[in-house]
Amino acid sequence: MTDKANLAEKLAGFDQHYAPRTVAEFNGHDVMVAKLKGPFVWHKHDETDDFFLVLKGILDIEMRDRTVTLGPGEVFVVPRGVEHRPVAREEVHIMLIEPTGTPNSGDPKTAAPRRLV
Amino acid sequence: MTDKANLAEKLAGFDQHYAPRTVAEFNGHDVMVAKLKGPFVWHKHDETDDFFLVLKGILDIEMRDRTVTLGPGEVFVVPRGVEHRPVAREEVHIMLIEPTGTPNSGDPKTAAPRRLV
Repeated sequence: MTDKANLAEKLAGFDQHYAPRTVAEFNGHDVMVAKLKGPFVWHKHDETDDFFLVLKGILDIEMRDRTVTLGPGEVFVVPRGVEHRPVAREEVHIMLIEPTGTPNSGDPKTAAPRRLV
Repeated sequence: MTDKANLAEKLAGFDQHYAPRTVAEFNGHDVMVAKLKGPFVWHKHDETDDFFLVLKGILDIEMRDRTVTLGPGEVFVVPRGVEHRPVAREEVHIMLIEPTGTPNSGDPKTAAPRRLV
């Protein structure tokens, strides 16, 4: 974790969807890359904001009252406590940042395991 | 701050070097974009790691014992307490993340003011 991370190279190393890989650590947070396709589950994080940067593709972040559509080079932060559902119409690549240990689904029972690459 | 931020559009809105613009807030941190050219000052942050993502150009992050060279799509985190000096040979565009209020030069006396865009 003391070297740089090339995000495209890290993304090329796996195919699974909604299975983030940690590429760096920062102030108690994991910097991750993920591939998304189709809808994720509705969820929220009561204790943390949810940072998204789209690297490739078009991502809808549905919230109960509106949808934010992100393309490459666009950032959006879902505030803590706000229910949301990412929906990737085609495969989307993102960088995301969350406190280390945050369950990606909002629930430890259904969360993807932490994977470092 | 409740809408998305297009990083390229935010970068197109100013010309100054080493004068970050805050484009989003996240868990007590500012998500910023900046244009760099030439060398910055040697500095460190004792209380926070320093997150860099290069969007355009080639950036050297000099440390006392080594230099990490970053191109577009590459992330590096300078650990807290580590002296470093960013050096941009040509104009470089970056996204950076630091706790809100962190002086970019490591010293409030010489730091760029916080600017929201």
